[in-house]
Amino acid sequence: MSLVQGLAAHAAGAELLPFRYETGDLGARDVEIDISHCGICHSDIHLISNDWGISQYPFIPGHEIIGTVSAVGADVRLLNIGQRVGLGWQSNSCGECEWCTRGLENLCLSSEGTCVRRHGGYASRVRANARFVFPIPDALASEQAAPLLCGGITVYNPLRIHDINPSSRVGVVGIGGLGHMAIQFARVFGAEVTAFSTSAEKEKEARSLGAHRFVHTRESRALKEVAGSLDFILSTVNADQDWGVYVQALRPTGKICFVGVPPSPVTLHAFPLIAGMRAVTGSPIGSPSRIREMLDVAARHQVGAIAQVFPMAKVNDALAKVKKNKVRYRAVLANE
Amino acid sequence: MSLVQGLAAHAAGAELLPFRYETGDLGARDVEIDISHCGICHSDIHLISNDWGISQYPFIPGHEIIGTVSAVGADVRLLNIGQRVGLGWQSNSCGECEWCTRGLENLCLSSEGTCVRRHGGYASRVRANARFVFPIPDALASEQAAPLLCGGITVYNPLRIHDINPSSRVGVVGIGGLGHMAIQFARVFGAEVTAFSTSAEKEKEARSLGAHRFVHTRESRALKEVAGSLDFILSTVNADQDWGVYVQALRPTGKICFVGVPPSPVTLHAFPLIAGMRAVTGSPIGSPSRIREMLDVAARHQVGAIAQVFPMAKVNDALAKVKKNKVRYRAVLANE
Repeated sequence: MSLVQGLAAHAAGAELLPFRYETGDLGARDVEIDISHCGICHSDIHLISNDWGISQYPFIPGHEIIGTVSAVGADVRLLNIGQRVGLGWQSNSCGECEWCTRGLENLCLSSEGTCVRRHGGYASRVRANARFVFPIPDALASEQAAPLLCGGITVYNPLRIHDINPSSRVGVVGIGGLGHMAIQFARVFGAEVTAFSTSAEKEKEARSLGAHRFVHTRESRALKEVAGSLDFILSTVNADQDWGVYVQALRPTGKICFVGVPPSPVTLHAFPLIAGMRAVTGSPIGSPSRIREMLDVAARHQVGAIAQVFPMAKVNDALAKVKKNKVRYRAVLANE
Repeated sequence: MSLVQGLAAHAAGAELLPFRYETGDLGARDVEIDISHCGICHSDIHLISNDWGISQYPFIPGHEIIGTVSAVGADVRLLNIGQRVGLGWQSNSCGECEWCTRGLENLCLSSEGTCVRRHGGYASRVRANARFVFPIPDALASEQAAPLLCGGITVYNPLRIHDINPSSRVGVVGIGGLGHMAIQFARVFGAEVTAFSTSAEKEKEARSLGAHRFVHTRESRALKEVAGSLDFILSTVNADQDWGVYVQALRPTGKICFVGVPPSPVTLHAFPLIAGMRAVTGSPIGSPSRIREMLDVAARHQVGAIAQVFPMAKVNDALAKVKKNKVRYRAVLANE
């Protein structure tokens, strides 16, 4: 039993207020984490607003968590009290199904979210199955590392799955919380990187993050100039776009991968998919083994979030800034 | 120089009428084929009607050609006069670009169609670059083999590209000219095959071709029952469908591949693509090396078109039956 102090929404879209809850007994395979940092992800905002119809109130958001292990269950072998660790979107899976046994726990149909129907990381403590709790390499600062646990793996995993390599020409659509990490990772894979943004003023930032080319998507000529030039486009935006233009930007055998969710259905002509063997796909987070790999790559290549740190008590200010797109690039809450 | 007797449309959608043309000199790398058989493909009907805006009249359709070599150019080394050969959709490519040098000539941006802006196989003779002319294994009858050259490779190639194997669960949408070959090939790959059709009376035929399961797509319950059950769906139909239902039929990491062109844009929600790493893709014909491979597989496993043979002179009757979906499963024209 443990008393957790958190910040909870008590109704859909409400401001977060202090809220305490008692944990039950610690499960044999569970780990308790004393939270030092928690990133703010757009999914938290969707959950606060019950946009997906799965939220239950009071509800403590948060799933980009860094902290130190404060307790371990009886069967936990590889994590120790005092160790710095991270926890992302997923906190458990069945461990038995085809996907879990193939090391693709992120596709488990019984996957449990860290803050879905349970309390998350805008709090003093959180618990999760030890399989989803990862040691954080010393080379990564906690505020840099927290957003890697959800946003980072969301962009890293598709680059690995789709075999991005030094011959690849990669487009990143949107230069925000996810996009700014995608540009960095794509560079680490050796790819030629084209950044797409609706804001012309982001060009300098995109280039400083590693982009070789910048396309201002409100200029239709700029979009036409990249036609047939990219092998892989990662779309990190949650806004509707003329997706046909991005399909046209792909070379034969090219793919566009959604990691942001456009609100409206995606409408595409089949013919360019057929004629050029192009594909449209998507990707959710990554498996525990892939998260460990990403943390290792991030530490060796000094990839991380550019974070704006807010005290945990200022969560509502931070959420307001994230909603207004005023944070460059990821907001991270810090406990005292 | 050679005089070719063909059957040509003289205007968009017109009946085909006898038409003669003179060939030029035979190119050093070209082969001339005395045509014995030519399959009727839906693309021929689109070209006759100028549905794609690329037809020029008079126009002789036909690109599923079987015949014997009647002349070879000075630089042709591997084909000999009298040999039985086949020629499909593609009759030439640049031979120099990235795609040609990678053995993916079907993606060459300078690809030449056998009957696009030149005369095709509803004729006595046709010419093509020797790289696109294939010896036909003795085990294949000419009327069985002709439709393999376009329809067959169109369904075989994506099964190979997407790694269909004995653990795969494959869906084939549409049991027509393409679908009836897709079912046979998917069985040869060892897959569990589910056939989807709007006609309940096709169940028996689908099972006799090798389908393990049959889904009557006008029954919404039947479609729901296959939710989350397939690794790969090959859509051979040229009609609009509720594609979201087919995406729902895919397991995590599953793919739907278009080889038929639906007339309207395809509308899909991004979320099921993201959550389950599903993909929507397409595929056009196949490379020459893949066509040779397919012919070998077809001969060894006795896969071929179920063909209804029409005399070449009855081309208009045959076209009318194909348009009315009255041919089971592929119409093939035969010269005397």
